[in-house]
Amino acid sequence: MKAFTKSHFAIASAAALFATASVASSHATKSSNADVAARHMMMEVVAKNMGILGSTAKGEIAFNAGLVQSAAGGINMLAKIDPTSLWTEGTEQGAADLSRAKTEIWSDPAGFAQKFEDMATASAVLMGAEDLDALRAGMGPLGGACKACHESYRGPKN
Amino acid sequence: MKAFTKSHFAIASAAALFATASVASSHATKSSNADVAARHMMMEVVAKNMGILGSTAKGEIAFNAGLVQSAAGGINMLAKIDPTSLWTEGTEQGAADLSRAKTEIWSDPAGFAQKFEDMATASAVLMGAEDLDALRAGMGPLGGACKACHESYRGPKN
Repeated sequence: MKAFTKSHFAIASAAALFATASVASSHATKSSNADVAARHMMMEVVAKNMGILGSTAKGEIAFNAGLVQSAAGGINMLAKIDPTSLWTEGTEQGAADLSRAKTEIWSDPAGFAQKFEDMATASAVLMGAEDLDALRAGMGPLGGACKACHESYRGPKN
Repeated sequence: MKAFTKSHFAIASAAALFATASVASSHATKSSNADVAARHMMMEVVAKNMGILGSTAKGEIAFNAGLVQSAAGGINMLAKIDPTSLWTEGTEQGAADLSRAKTEIWSDPAGFAQKFEDMATASAVLMGAEDLDALRAGMGPLGGACKACHESYRGPKN
């Protein structure tokens, strides 16, 4: 234990607490590029939050206004990250392992940023959903925002 | 398609977008109890956000203030859900499938609510972490809040 400081040990403990959940990653391998790995982790959180919203919309879990607000809010916060801070130069598909980022992200930065604004707008609407009908009505626009960005800026599977 | 309204189709489309990620759940089976299933989904989102914070603390992904703030913020929002709205009566371990909720949750509601406040406090500190040192310093208290609650209110594996 001598090689570890107290804070490193605390970090390791916190990480171990969640090891069970972390094993079940949708990415079998973590990218060797720290920004690509961070993007994938961000997308996994978006996907998990979408899972809460989708399962609620389908009636698989009980409608819970607080949970819906938190899930939509989690997506909303992630949508407000400056995309240029994660989609850094030289991390397009082919240049960084596991990346699926199209070069259009860098040739059309305004268009890419707009997709994040669309995600923020659609998720903000869902943050205010007070019943199942409102949630269901907002799912299409949010799913559409995801799809539109993926179609324009995400390349084929590696 | 006649049986589906436009909004149902939109929900299905949104769900399909994330099917790949959703398959990789840490819970092989979804509880038949809607509240237990919702709790598990909530905890998966907490775990994914903890993964971002932990991977950043360990240097596996690049420090990104926006991503750290969003991950900590996602946990913070989930911490603010009224626990009684998800830990509903009759959903303790043994009563609802896949539940690991101890009966202490209902016999000591104030103590359980305090654990959520502790999670909110520790995650709020991390929302303001502007560098790696601040993040690392805040990981121990947050991991400790997780651990303390699990030790007091979560039963053994099913």
